[in-house]
Amino acid sequence: MKKRILIVGGVAGGATAAAHARRKSEDAEIIIFEKGPHVSFANCGLPYYVGGEITEKKDLLVQTPEGLRSRFNLDVRVMSEVVTIDSENRKVEIFDSRSEKKYWETFDDLVLSTGASPLKPPIPGIDLEGHFTVRNIPDIEAIKTWIANHKPCKAVVVGGGFIGLEMVEQLHRLEIEITVVEALPQVMAPLDPEMAAWLHQKLREKNVKLHLDDPVSKFEKSEDVQASILELKSGQRIPADVVILGLGVRPEIKLGKDAGLEIGERGGFRVNDLLQTSAPNIWAIGDAIEVRDFVTGNWTLIPLAGPANRQGRIVAENIFGNSIKYPGTCGTSILRLFDLAVASTGANEKILKMNKIPYDVIHLHPPSHASYYPGAFPLTMKVLFNPQTGKLLGAQMIGKDGVDKRIDVFATALKAGMTVHDLEDLELAYAPPFGSAKDPINLAGMVAGHIIKGEVQNCQWHEIAKLDPGKTIVLDVRDEDEREEGYISGSLHIPLPELRNRFLELPKDLEIIVYCQSGQRSYFSCCFLAQQGFKVKNLSGAYRTWKAATNQ
Amino acid sequence: MKKRILIVGGVAGGATAAAHARRKSEDAEIIIFEKGPHVSFANCGLPYYVGGEITEKKDLLVQTPEGLRSRFNLDVRVMSEVVTIDSENRKVEIFDSRSEKKYWETFDDLVLSTGASPLKPPIPGIDLEGHFTVRNIPDIEAIKTWIANHKPCKAVVVGGGFIGLEMVEQLHRLEIEITVVEALPQVMAPLDPEMAAWLHQKLREKNVKLHLDDPVSKFEKSEDVQASILELKSGQRIPADVVILGLGVRPEIKLGKDAGLEIGERGGFRVNDLLQTSAPNIWAIGDAIEVRDFVTGNWTLIPLAGPANRQGRIVAENIFGNSIKYPGTCGTSILRLFDLAVASTGANEKILKMNKIPYDVIHLHPPSHASYYPGAFPLTMKVLFNPQTGKLLGAQMIGKDGVDKRIDVFATALKAGMTVHDLEDLELAYAPPFGSAKDPINLAGMVAGHIIKGEVQNCQWHEIAKLDPGKTIVLDVRDEDEREEGYISGSLHIPLPELRNRFLELPKDLEIIVYCQSGQRSYFSCCFLAQQGFKVKNLSGAYRTWKAATNQ
Repeated sequence: MKKRILIVGGVAGGATAAAHARRKSEDAEIIIFEKGPHVSFANCGLPYYVGGEITEKKDLLVQTPEGLRSRFNLDVRVMSEVVTIDSENRKVEIFDSRSEKKYWETFDDLVLSTGASPLKPPIPGIDLEGHFTVRNIPDIEAIKTWIANHKPCKAVVVGGGFIGLEMVEQLHRLEIEITVVEALPQVMAPLDPEMAAWLHQKLREKNVKLHLDDPVSKFEKSEDVQASILELKSGQRIPADVVILGLGVRPEIKLGKDAGLEIGERGGFRVNDLLQTSAPNIWAIGDAIEVRDFVTGNWTLIPLAGPANRQGRIVAENIFGNSIKYPGTCGTSILRLFDLAVASTGANEKILKMNKIPYDVIHLHPPSHASYYPGAFPLTMKVLFNPQTGKLLGAQMIGKDGVDKRIDVFATALKAGMTVHDLEDLELAYAPPFGSAKDPINLAGMVAGHIIKGEVQNCQWHEIAKLDPGKTIVLDVRDEDEREEGYISGSLHIPLPELRNRFLELPKDLEIIVYCQSGQRSYFSCCFLAQQGFKVKNLSGAYRTWKAATNQ
Repeated sequence: MKKRILIVGGVAGGATAAAHARRKSEDAEIIIFEKGPHVSFANCGLPYYVGGEITEKKDLLVQTPEGLRSRFNLDVRVMSEVVTIDSENRKVEIFDSRSEKKYWETFDDLVLSTGASPLKPPIPGIDLEGHFTVRNIPDIEAIKTWIANHKPCKAVVVGGGFIGLEMVEQLHRLEIEITVVEALPQVMAPLDPEMAAWLHQKLREKNVKLHLDDPVSKFEKSEDVQASILELKSGQRIPADVVILGLGVRPEIKLGKDAGLEIGERGGFRVNDLLQTSAPNIWAIGDAIEVRDFVTGNWTLIPLAGPANRQGRIVAENIFGNSIKYPGTCGTSILRLFDLAVASTGANEKILKMNKIPYDVIHLHPPSHASYYPGAFPLTMKVLFNPQTGKLLGAQMIGKDGVDKRIDVFATALKAGMTVHDLEDLELAYAPPFGSAKDPINLAGMVAGHIIKGEVQNCQWHEIAKLDPGKTIVLDVRDEDEREEGYISGSLHIPLPELRNRFLELPKDLEIIVYCQSGQRSYFSCCFLAQQGFKVKNLSGAYRTWKAATNQ
C-alpha cells in the first residue's frame, strides 16, 4: 500500500519519523511541514552559539530541506504552518507564509511533532524589547544581534532551569554581569534542594547573583537600561540590558485541540502506548505529548530530545503495521554548569514524597576516579530506592568529571529494574585514569545495602537542626585539620583512629549521630559503636552534604 | 562467637576482606600476612609512577599497616610469608623474613588472597639484568632506579597486554625509544583483531616499533646494550637497554596446592559460588581463583581489581554466616593508550567461536557526542549478540572520549541480561558536550535490531577479500571527497544522494555489498536497494573498519 504520511514539525522527532518512514517504505509519500525556516536543527545546541562555543550557524543545521530530499526523498516544506486538521476527512490545511496562501493536503497518517513553546506568563512588561526566549534559530540570532548592537553590561536570566542555566554559562563567557531570578527556592527542579545547593554555590562563586524564591512581578521600561528593570515580589529592583526568559515550556497543542484530540491533565496530547492520539491515524510525539513516568506511572511532560527521537522511530514503525510500545520515560538529563556536570534520572525525593511512594535515600561523595591518580574530584551523589526491595527509584549527581557515565549506568539499571544490591555486583571499567576498583556505583550499592539490611541507620541533613539535645549528641570522627575548617555546632570530636580507646567518653543513653567528611569513616564508626551497644545513626552524605545544604 | 581470621595477602581483595570482616565483628581477631613490605598498595597505579604521572611513592600506598591498625584494629604483618597450611588442624606456618623465624598461628577461617605472579617462561636469558616485571612497589622502584642510573635509549616491552601497553605509554613519556614484541598476531587479547588493529595504528603513529606474531627465542647479554639483545623467532635481533616483561600472570597457588586444595583446569583455586575452596573454612579470592565467565559459563581467570574487591567483601559476609554468591565475571576492562581509551566487556568473537555460541556482530563508528558541538571524535564499537533473541554477549570499544561510559553501560546491560532491543530504549544523558540525542548505545541497539529483524544483512570486513567477482559487486555510496582518500579496490561508486536516480546502473543478478564511511549511509542505501529488488548486504563498520582491519 502506498501511504501518504504528513508530518507536522520538522525538528527532532518529526525529522526522525520522516527519515525512518522512508526506510520502511520507498513508495510512501512523505511531507514534512515546518512553520519556521529550518528543519532538523540542533535545538539543544542553541545556547552554545550565543557564547561562541559553536561558531558557525551552519553547524546548528543538522539537516537541510535539500539534504533530506536527496538522502531520503522527503518533501520538506518550511515556512509552512499546518493550521487546521480535518480528522474525519483525513486532510490538513496549510498556510504558506511566503506566498501567504492556504491549501489542503490529504493523509493516510498524520504525525504531530509540534513541540513545546516557551512559557510567557502574563507578567506586566514581559514582551518589552530586549526580552528573549530560546527556542529556535531566529530566537538565538535575535539574541546575538541584540548583544552585538547593545553590548549589554547586565543580563537577567529569569528561570533557573536547563535553558536558563545554559544561557548563564554562555553569557558569562561574554563577560556580561548576570543575575538569575527564580520563583522557586532552588534552581534545577529535577534536583532535590540539598543537591541544587551545590549549583547555588557554583553560581555565586562565578559572581552570578541569585534571587531565589522571588518571582518577577513586573518588567518596567526605563531610560537607565537597554531592556527593562525587573521588580521582584520581594520589592527588589534589578536593571537589565538583556533579559532571557527561561520559564519552562508548554506543549503546543492548539492545532490538535481544535481538531478535538484528547488533551491530558498535564496539557499535552494524550496518546496510547503505541503513540496514537484519540483520533484514528493521527499520531503524536515529542515535547507535545504526555508520557508515562517510568517510576511513578503517572502522566508527565518530559521535553527531552532523546525520547522525542525514540518516539519518532516508534511511530514510523507503527504506521507500517508494527506494534512497538513506548515504555515510558525516566527523564535522564544532564546540564553542564561551568566546570560542573549535573545529572539526574528517575524520580527525585520531592516526586516520591508527593506520590507517597516509599523510599530511602543515601548521599555519598566518592572520588571520580582512583584517588591516588591525579585529577580526582569528589562526586556528589544522591540515590533513592525502595527501603524493602532495594529497587532503584532515582539518582542525582554533581561533579567535575565522570558524572555523565555514572548517571547513564543508573539510567540503565533503572530501566532494567535493578536493585541497589545489583549495583554492588556491577563490573565497571577500572583503570586509574577512569575509575576505581570500587566504582562510585558499586559504593552506592553497598551503602544502600547497609541501610536495607539494617546494619546502619541514616540521619538526613535536614534532621540535624531538629535534634533534641536532651536525647541526642552529634559526633565528629574526622581528623583535627578537617575539623578546623568547620564543624556542626555542638558536636563532640573524637577522630576515628582514637575511637576504640575513647568510646567510653560517649553517653550510652543518648542517640549518637556520627559524621565525617564524606560518610565512609562515620559508617566505620557506626559499625563499631553499634557493636559496643550504642544507639547510632550515620549522617547521610556527612559534613559535605550538610554544609552545602545548610549553606554554611 | 569470637572468630580468628587469618588472611594471606594484604593487597586488593585481602585488605578488603579484612576491613569488611572487622565491620562484621568487633570481637574477631583478624591478622593479615603479607610477604612483601607493603599492604593495600595501588597495584593498578604502578606504571604511572614510572612515567611520573604519579609523582610520590606515598600516593601508591592506599593504606599503611599503621592505618589499618588504627582504623580497623587489624593485626597487619608485612615481610611475613605464609609457607604452610595445615588445614586439618586449622593452622598456618609463617616465615618472618626480618627475624628469619618461623612460627604457627591457628585460624577459624583462612582467606587466601595470594594473587598472581608475572609469567616468566623458560626463555634463555630471561633473568638477565635490566629485565623487569611489574607486580609490586619494589619492582617499580627497581625500574625507576635502572632508568635513572642507565638512562636507557631503547626499551623493549615483551607482551602487548595491559601491563605491557601501560608501560609503553609511560616509557614514551620519558622519551625512550620503544619496541613491543608480541607472540600473538595482535596486542590486547580481549579485543578481536579488527579492533586491535586500531591500537597497532596508534602505536606506529607514536613511533613505537611493533613485532607481532613473533615470540622471543632468547635474550643475549651484549656489551653494546645495557640490558640484552632479543632474538625473535623470525630471526630479528632487537637491542634493549631495558626490558619490561608483560607476559601475563599465573595464579599463585603453591601454598594451597601443597595443602591439597583443589586446583582448576585453568590453574587457579577452584572455589564454589560462596568462594569456599575444597577445604572447610578456607576461602580464596582475587587473581588466585578461577571464576565463572558470566557469558560462556566456563571457568576462567580474570585478574582484575574490581572483582577481587567484590570477592573480598563477599567472603567477609560468608565467614559470618551469610550466603552471598559470587555471580561470575564479565571481565569489564579498560586501558588508556596515549589519547585512546580501549575497553571491553563480556565475550569477544574469538571466545564465542571457540565455545560454539551462536552470535552476530555489528561494528559502528558514531561520534562521541553531538557532532555539531566541538570536540566530537568517532568511537569504534563492536557489539556481539545472540542472532535470535538479541541477548547481549559482549562489546568492545575504542575512542578518544566517552569510551569508559559506554562500556559501563554495556557492562550494566550485560549483567541485567538485556537484549539489543532494550538498548534502543535506554534513556541516556544528553546535552551537546556529553552525548547525542541518539546515543551510540541506542544506535548500537538499532543497528543490531535491523540485523535481527532481517531488515538488512551484514557482510563482515574479512569476507571482502573472499568475494566472488562473478557473483558480487561492491558499491561505495560515499561522497567524492571521501572516495578520493581511498576506497575498496574494484568498488563501484554512486554517492547516496545520486542513488535514487542511478540505481538502474546496478546489476540485478549480482549481490551488492554496500559501504560508506561509517555505516549509516550504506544502511540507508541497503534499505532503498532492497525495496527495489536488489540482493544487498551492508559492510559492517563500513570503510573505517575495513581499512583499519586490513591495514590499508
